[in-house]
Amino acid sequence: MHQIPQGFALAVARADFRNSPTPARNDIALVYAQDPLTCAALFTQNLFKAAPVLVAQEIYAAHQEGEPVHGALLNSGQANACTGPQGEANCRVALLMAENALAQQGTACKLLPASTGVIGHQMDMTKWEAAMPNLYASLGKCTLEDATRAIMTTDSFPKMASRTLTLDGREVRITGFAKGAGMICPNMATMLSVVMSDIDASPALWREIFSHAVAASYNRASVDGDTSTNDTLYGFASGKSGFALQEGTPEETLYRSALTEVLAELAYLLVKDGEGATKVMHIRVHGAPTNNDAELVARAVGHSQLVKTAMFGKDPNWGRIVAAAGRSGASFNPKDLTLHLAGVELFRNGAPRAFAPGEMDNLLRAPLEEVDIPVDICLGNGPGSAFLMASDLSHDYVSCNSDYRS
Amino acid sequence: MHQIPQGFALAVARADFRNSPTPARNDIALVYAQDPLTCAALFTQNLFKAAPVLVAQEIYAAHQEGEPVHGALLNSGQANACTGPQGEANCRVALLMAENALAQQGTACKLLPASTGVIGHQMDMTKWEAAMPNLYASLGKCTLEDATRAIMTTDSFPKMASRTLTLDGREVRITGFAKGAGMICPNMATMLSVVMSDIDASPALWREIFSHAVAASYNRASVDGDTSTNDTLYGFASGKSGFALQEGTPEETLYRSALTEVLAELAYLLVKDGEGATKVMHIRVHGAPTNNDAELVARAVGHSQLVKTAMFGKDPNWGRIVAAAGRSGASFNPKDLTLHLAGVELFRNGAPRAFAPGEMDNLLRAPLEEVDIPVDICLGNGPGSAFLMASDLSHDYVSCNSDYRS
Repeated sequence: MHQIPQGFALAVARADFRNSPTPARNDIALVYAQDPLTCAALFTQNLFKAAPVLVAQEIYAAHQEGEPVHGALLNSGQANACTGPQGEANCRVALLMAENALAQQGTACKLLPASTGVIGHQMDMTKWEAAMPNLYASLGKCTLEDATRAIMTTDSFPKMASRTLTLDGREVRITGFAKGAGMICPNMATMLSVVMSDIDASPALWREIFSHAVAASYNRASVDGDTSTNDTLYGFASGKSGFALQEGTPEETLYRSALTEVLAELAYLLVKDGEGATKVMHIRVHGAPTNNDAELVARAVGHSQLVKTAMFGKDPNWGRIVAAAGRSGASFNPKDLTLHLAGVELFRNGAPRAFAPGEMDNLLRAPLEEVDIPVDICLGNGPGSAFLMASDLSHDYVSCNSDYRS
Repeated sequence: MHQIPQGFALAVARADFRNSPTPARNDIALVYAQDPLTCAALFTQNLFKAAPVLVAQEIYAAHQEGEPVHGALLNSGQANACTGPQGEANCRVALLMAENALAQQGTACKLLPASTGVIGHQMDMTKWEAAMPNLYASLGKCTLEDATRAIMTTDSFPKMASRTLTLDGREVRITGFAKGAGMICPNMATMLSVVMSDIDASPALWREIFSHAVAASYNRASVDGDTSTNDTLYGFASGKSGFALQEGTPEETLYRSALTEVLAELAYLLVKDGEGATKVMHIRVHGAPTNNDAELVARAVGHSQLVKTAMFGKDPNWGRIVAAAGRSGASFNPKDLTLHLAGVELFRNGAPRAFAPGEMDNLLRAPLEEVDIPVDICLGNGPGSAFLMASDLSHDYVSCNSDYRS
């Protein structure tokens, strides 16, 4: 059971953006704090930023200049991406509706938007309007799982993670949720994710901690190599635990590592629940001349359709891994490459390991039945390294994505 | 019926490299000319070059210094890639066996090698030896299709193309064949291909013409974005037509364009017969700041799993195309992007075209049933352009590649 940090309340409502023939599910989630929050935000690097990303960047810029922020309004069912000026106007109207509903309680508030779903459709504003009373009514009455389920698209399970620390005698919570499934290759953020904490931290420290944690978690995850138009991550700190984080203290180290754990756990769940995924490859490249060379190899292997389908087939077809490394553009001497798949050495210093007939398949049969498959690639004696979690490529991925729109 | 140019003879034999339970098929092909040929060769850019590529590069370097070459010895069933020094030694032995068999006819000869099949297995040399008498016996008694079929792996049909020109009263032939199917994203060459012509051309002119024709054909084709370890293209000119090509003549222009047509036809067939492929996207990007920006967009779209699965599903999910362009790394203003899919404008200057409900699906239903799908992307007013043919991603691709080895 994941506890919501102090100072936050959640709400959900159903607008039925999908026009679903089956009973409608919740598709709006609200993360709200009565008192202003310290916010860190990261957005997609895709040139086509969805309307909610463009609007959020404005609000976030104002927040960095001192304007208050009270939470986020998220929806699934419509990405509001590639929708032009009309899409931006609709996003602002939806925010105003929610802010006005909350203001009726007597609190002026400012929300950040985030949307996920099909690209290119305009949002139906009458549906937003109709859903507002229910959203307001559910405030504080729903669980983290309710909110997480409201933003799911092709996700097969809700993704949540949390840690509780005791810092200087105070209980400090970090609780995050995310949605993923397809178009997942985050670049500075993931599809949609919100992380709440009741720690007190200066805006500069909070943002710096978040950037580092994201670089070591979401940016190390890939389902299909496609960076979305809507990637958004919000990190909110309420300060309500009463513990104030100071730079250079042992508590800072503890908190950083707990936050990175929460994000890494969510990133792992994103890959594990990638569309059609049955495997998570844990690709570790080291010994490269530079980190960038290692990164090129990790991405080439993790994104190779041939490697992904071999993993789905539980096939120790290591030649595809070596070939992907060789065409990655990374600089290394092929005579230095050593590969371990699921802990078994298959290739050393540019030559295949000799096996008796059937020996390799026997050694790898059980490890390749597992969900988690370590892929360890050494490129030589250089200082460069990289890590990537990547899913496999299955029939269900093709099924899911050849008829997603219909 | 594709005619073999004058001066060439073909041969095939079955070594049963695959240990197939079904009746063995031919898996060795020989392209041979009694008199020395002028040769152009292009090889994979993958750092892991298969043993036959490494050996061929040596022979080709000697040929460029004046050593004669009489043709190529090709096999399917074993790629002889990632096989270390033993693989190179085996390749040399196989060449020697074939050269000796031909020398018994009284002609000393030098052959170039090329192999395709599973990566990482050592070749069975007793099988090579046993096949040699049959190979020699079939010389000149087999068709182009026999030779093409002998090098097929997961290809579903043989890929051949030819043109005949009359230049200065002489009949000049260009006849090529290729194998493809998977690990197809040629970079300077394709999986395996041989093009024969009976034209007479200086080595320098012949190689220059070939490089240009490849840049406009094989290097514009992709099935899965994976560049193979074995990509090899040989272009052989026998001179037996009696026509000598001269630079700067109208005949040179005619010949260049015919050769490019042959290679482009083979490249198209490679994509059309990509593993599991049901579609060929013809991606044309123009108006980019540079050719490189256009290339980044074409490759991002052509390699996107989400675009490929949408095409397989006959789904006009244009948001995925626009999103892939946006994350490609190319430099352009998203407000300038215009997209036509199968001739229908869907997106203009950064905003979606307005359609009545169901109108877009009605417009695109029939065009998306076709095999060939034009994807036209304009990025603005720049001079940069690029073209790429790319296949879709289907259930059969996953089936084929999740149990290829077994």
